[in-house]
Amino acid sequence: MITIYGMTDSGNCYKPRLLLAKLGRPFRHVEVNSLDGSTRKPDFLAINANGKVPVLELDDGRRVAESNAILLFLAENTRFLPADAYQRALAYQWLFFEQYSHEPYVAVRRAIMRYPSRAAEATPERLAATLTAGNRALAVMETHLATHAYFVGGELSVADIGLYAYTQDAAEHGFSVGPAVAGWLDRVRADPGHVPLGWHPPA
Amino acid sequence: MITIYGMTDSGNCYKPRLLLAKLGRPFRHVEVNSLDGSTRKPDFLAINANGKVPVLELDDGRRVAESNAILLFLAENTRFLPADAYQRALAYQWLFFEQYSHEPYVAVRRAIMRYPSRAAEATPERLAATLTAGNRALAVMETHLATHAYFVGGELSVADIGLYAYTQDAAEHGFSVGPAVAGWLDRVRADPGHVPLGWHPPA
Repeated sequence: MITIYGMTDSGNCYKPRLLLAKLGRPFRHVEVNSLDGSTRKPDFLAINANGKVPVLELDDGRRVAESNAILLFLAENTRFLPADAYQRALAYQWLFFEQYSHEPYVAVRRAIMRYPSRAAEATPERLAATLTAGNRALAVMETHLATHAYFVGGELSVADIGLYAYTQDAAEHGFSVGPAVAGWLDRVRADPGHVPLGWHPPA
Repeated sequence: MITIYGMTDSGNCYKPRLLLAKLGRPFRHVEVNSLDGSTRKPDFLAINANGKVPVLELDDGRRVAESNAILLFLAENTRFLPADAYQRALAYQWLFFEQYSHEPYVAVRRAIMRYPSRAAEATPERLAATLTAGNRALAVMETHLATHAYFVGGELSVADIGLYAYTQDAAEHGFSVGPAVAGWLDRVRADPGHVPLGWHPPA
């Protein structure tokens, strides 16, 4: 059985759990807390030299890091990754958009507002900067979703799962979620096999 | 013929040019300067709503944004992207590492040191923060390259092209480039069809 090392409350770590739940694929969850220094300890750095969760571990011990790389790997030959080369390229595009233009603002503002251990980072300047840049990313999503039901190819894919993870509670952290994004959030939640962020696989 | 919209001096925009040169595939280069506001003007936002270069445009007008998504798209069925699912996953992993843990520090410090229009951002705090985090990414690369010739599968792939773009002049901007990274830079430069950052296709 495959293993996901991850922190339950992290959106990045939620991504592979959500995909695996939708695929009905069993896996083992190993909690690794990135807030208490666990991801920077030698035993975890031996698992991922970059000191980040999530990490996917296969039965034979081979590993893949980076949440969106794990999504792409697990989605191969499933309905969650298009077979068409151009549609795949758009899935890649939106996943890189998520990690470069969305997560560093939407997830970071969430983290510094949410976790006492990161409260010192929640300066007015940092809160304002992450809000502005995160809202810019959400506006790009709003523009796309105004004329598309999903990000790629008219159906739910890894691009939606990747972007859902930190958009699903963005409004709670002060971000502007437009009507097209709100409708898309509802569609993702209604897609078969959906599980919420706190979900773990049955032991 | 395909078109790349990009800024010559940007490492992100260099990535597809380098891959296309190595593939011997003709393309048209359209200069778009991200420093003078060109990427935020309405005519360019119609090309990429996220206001960033590079953008790949196909003959039929379809487009792909995000430098590493363009690399993956162009590399399909070539020697630069492994066919094996696990090796592909590692290529994805390193490309996401590049955009999340490397580029925001190595490329940003380069930009604020290099471009007069961004000099106001080059505060001592920003220079120090980007140096520390960038050196951490370079140390992760050093660890990997101490025991591997390339990032994935023993030969040059899109992962190397993606990471080469902003590592190739990192030492000029004060970053610590270890011996394994330096040796890898030499191997990338020696690979057939290499072109430097300033290269453009013949008209």
